[in-house]
Amino acid sequence: MHYVIALYVSLLDPLFLLSFAGLSAAKLLKANGLNTVVLEARDRVGGRTFTVRNKETKWVDLGGAYVGPTQNRIFRLAEEYGIKTYKVNEQESLVHYVNGKSYPFKGSFPPMWNPFVLLDFNNLWRTMDDMGKEIPREAPWKAPHAEEWDKMSMREIVDSILLFLLKGELRTVRQFATLFVNVNVTSEPHEVSALWFLWYVKQCGGTMRIFSTTNGGQERKFVGGSGQISECMARELGDRVKLQSPVYRIDQSGNMVVVETVDKQTYTAKYVIVATPPGLNLKMHFNPELPPLRNQLIHRVPMGSVIKCMVYYKENFWRKKGYCGSMVIEEEGAPISLTLDDTKPDGAVPAIMGFILARKCRKLSELTKEERLKRICDIYSRVLGTEEALHPVHYEEKNWCEEEYSGGCYTAYFPPGILTQYGKVLREPVGRLYFAGTETATEWSGYMEGAVQAGERAAREVMCVLGKIHQSQIWQTEPQCLEVPALPFVTTFWERNMPSVGGLLKFMGVSSFLSAATAAGMLAYKKGLLPLPRS
Amino acid sequence: MHYVIALYVSLLDPLFLLSFAGLSAAKLLKANGLNTVVLEARDRVGGRTFTVRNKETKWVDLGGAYVGPTQNRIFRLAEEYGIKTYKVNEQESLVHYVNGKSYPFKGSFPPMWNPFVLLDFNNLWRTMDDMGKEIPREAPWKAPHAEEWDKMSMREIVDSILLFLLKGELRTVRQFATLFVNVNVTSEPHEVSALWFLWYVKQCGGTMRIFSTTNGGQERKFVGGSGQISECMARELGDRVKLQSPVYRIDQSGNMVVVETVDKQTYTAKYVIVATPPGLNLKMHFNPELPPLRNQLIHRVPMGSVIKCMVYYKENFWRKKGYCGSMVIEEEGAPISLTLDDTKPDGAVPAIMGFILARKCRKLSELTKEERLKRICDIYSRVLGTEEALHPVHYEEKNWCEEEYSGGCYTAYFPPGILTQYGKVLREPVGRLYFAGTETATEWSGYMEGAVQAGERAAREVMCVLGKIHQSQIWQTEPQCLEVPALPFVTTFWERNMPSVGGLLKFMGVSSFLSAATAAGMLAYKKGLLPLPRS
Repeated sequence: MHYVIALYVSLLDPLFLLSFAGLSAAKLLKANGLNTVVLEARDRVGGRTFTVRNKETKWVDLGGAYVGPTQNRIFRLAEEYGIKTYKVNEQESLVHYVNGKSYPFKGSFPPMWNPFVLLDFNNLWRTMDDMGKEIPREAPWKAPHAEEWDKMSMREIVDSILLFLLKGELRTVRQFATLFVNVNVTSEPHEVSALWFLWYVKQCGGTMRIFSTTNGGQERKFVGGSGQISECMARELGDRVKLQSPVYRIDQSGNMVVVETVDKQTYTAKYVIVATPPGLNLKMHFNPELPPLRNQLIHRVPMGSVIKCMVYYKENFWRKKGYCGSMVIEEEGAPISLTLDDTKPDGAVPAIMGFILARKCRKLSELTKEERLKRICDIYSRVLGTEEALHPVHYEEKNWCEEEYSGGCYTAYFPPGILTQYGKVLREPVGRLYFAGTETATEWSGYMEGAVQAGERAAREVMCVLGKIHQSQIWQTEPQCLEVPALPFVTTFWERNMPSVGGLLKFMGVSSFLSAATAAGMLAYKKGLLPLPRS
Repeated sequence: MHYVIALYVSLLDPLFLLSFAGLSAAKLLKANGLNTVVLEARDRVGGRTFTVRNKETKWVDLGGAYVGPTQNRIFRLAEEYGIKTYKVNEQESLVHYVNGKSYPFKGSFPPMWNPFVLLDFNNLWRTMDDMGKEIPREAPWKAPHAEEWDKMSMREIVDSILLFLLKGELRTVRQFATLFVNVNVTSEPHEVSALWFLWYVKQCGGTMRIFSTTNGGQERKFVGGSGQISECMARELGDRVKLQSPVYRIDQSGNMVVVETVDKQTYTAKYVIVATPPGLNLKMHFNPELPPLRNQLIHRVPMGSVIKCMVYYKENFWRKKGYCGSMVIEEEGAPISLTLDDTKPDGAVPAIMGFILARKCRKLSELTKEERLKRICDIYSRVLGTEEALHPVHYEEKNWCEEEYSGGCYTAYFPPGILTQYGKVLREPVGRLYFAGTETATEWSGYMEGAVQAGERAAREVMCVLGKIHQSQIWQTEPQCLEVPALPFVTTFWERNMPSVGGLLKFMGVSSFLSAATAAGMLAYKKGLLPLPRS
């Protein structure tokens, strides 16, 4: 579910970058004998990863933390530094909280009991994954239906997949689809382009891989925190890493690129790798100006909204009740939509990690930390059915929306219409500037894995232009991490072949006219909910 | 159809701003005895207005140019400096070019001949204006249906108003609605929030006022160019205006606000008025960081996309053919969607002004200036039915997408979901920072008029906090300009009372079930156009 920033990296003869993608680019360039400087805006490395140490928590990841199968580059880096992973606890039952009741379950997605809901639910994931298959991971704007899908928000496309939507209890699936978007990209279904979201899920390996704990993106965490990876890279780079050095000016009007920082230092380099999220390019004044499409792109890809909240307890009482700590919470008034157990691998420091996402994040940003904690404990106590949840011993939180040098978390999203019009310039070099950052990745973009892929790819672009490698070597695949193998997801015959509700009606021999009319009637009903005066 | 930037204004004891809103704020503060400095990023004042003088054109407005009834503040300013207006030529017929044919017409909107199209067309404008009546101009997020309308793009809401859409020739209305959005806000219907666009049209006075030349937003231009207004204000402010001074840092951690510019100057002030478009706040590094909602807002409100193109001819041959020079062009392959006569008021320097808008702007940005001119002349020749259009004597153009310190033109737009979640912080002060810029206006936001309203309002906010005026004096209405009175738009009995197609079917006694089923059938058909694999 995560990423890592990278502000600006620089390679002196070559030049500059920042944070995760930035650090990984600099590391690779250094290994190839190139002189680099990394300019980091903050007083720490790590960007959107942020590991805090204190006596209450030992260590806690307040930013990107989770890793899982198929994220092989980040495992390679961790292994090099001797950083171990451990599995997020999923031994006991997960809980799905909906309509004020808790339903324990096992597996990736909560089960749906109503057979009509189940048909639509099953059809939704299958359709999303099938649509994803059409979308090239390296160029989603070239998908056969790119223009049509990009004109629609995810809200529209879910509505068009779920024909029986809004009919009483059947709105369940739509609600869950909203949570699925909220959790994966910290934004709302109506805010994001359908093409972009379907691409995003696809390049993470599909609906099951992205959402699962076991065998998915949330399977593991790093013992000691994800921040160690950046710290180790920074240590390796030594005084090449300059902290508290936000870049405000990039001048490539001469033979060399001149970079100026807010702390009034000037750096000169042959090439610069800009490893910030695209929108943070705006923190820099460019000479000459950026080309028109890039100049507009960087105003069009905002970061999502999330507060990461860790509640600490004396003991992990949930496990005793048969719950693993994972909660999927569907209630408009609840601050948190998804939780995972955050107890240390040895059972110490019992804790629950929860996300305040998208619309809820904006609403709850205005409360005090204490008020947020109170509301969080309150919903945990209702979902887990025990007042033990009301007595935390410690609380940590991080509102990523207030970070000037991230702009939000986990990653940038594309509103409708932007990916097809501007996507192709996302990693197109501008003169001597090259672009990294997890947003420019093609596998696990938005996560730490994507940051590493992007940083190394940008570093190789610079090596290529310096004549050190061939163009065909820029993009490289990564061998599978032996300790974290990717298992296929087992789908049942019924999941693969069960019809959608629309399909079922046809199968049942209802005349195609009537079936269409019924479906259309539902759509008309939906449209009728739209209060248009005198229309 | 226009606006004006204002980068950063500063008032020393109070402090800073930029360009139109910036200059008008500084002007008002100076008149009230306050010491101000205006920090302008560019080497000229005017922001999104830009008047160029040369021998071929005498003068030409390559940015904001048009003004009309109800824009009383900008008329007041112009009058003060003795700058006169003249009427854009609309004596002869306008032309509507659609399906490869030219149809001359008179009035604001092209007539629709097919009676079903006419019903839907008429209903569209009426519905949009009725919806606008529900939306408070100073707080659109408080509209009764704010959340529902903000979740939809303008594309979705047009589809829901136009039931008979996409049925053969009836797609005409949808196509025209797309042009209406393109022309008014330089973006695509699927890119903008319906709530925001309906608010935008409403705060300009409705669909007729915003789109009309005579009696509307394009009625007049300034003799000598709109840039003169900024130039006169700058002259009045003298050396208080600092050109080529882009602000990159605003520090309000001490008692005073410290502002640093790229040209390495430091300014200190009690208050700062930031008069850039919201997204250009990102060019500044803030200490302390902005609050979470503002920090995210400024990544979420991109500027539209437009190239303004002026083609000059030996004579205005179009007038001889009975055309005034206004063309409404509906053809996907045509670069230009709307033109107006740009001949000087005395008949000298015959010219046609045309806009390359939104999707077309992004596509044609990659051509050379010569290629664009060729394509423009080509479509003018087809629309006006004469090869005289193929022989220009001069060409001027301005691609606003390449301007680092505008980010685009005419104005910022709100994608779906943003206005309700972030709108309320648009002009909320942050410590000693106040916000102007046409985007923060409540009347003709996006235009020069809005820039003046915003600049003066922000100046009065500072005067209020300094105890010079009462809070109730911050927002002021403007008396009507006597020379440019606003006339009501005459609607016929039929326009006011003609049913929509849906309504007509009911009126004709078709059972409501069937009527609904027909409508629903159409919707289903629309949905069917969406190619979903296996859905």
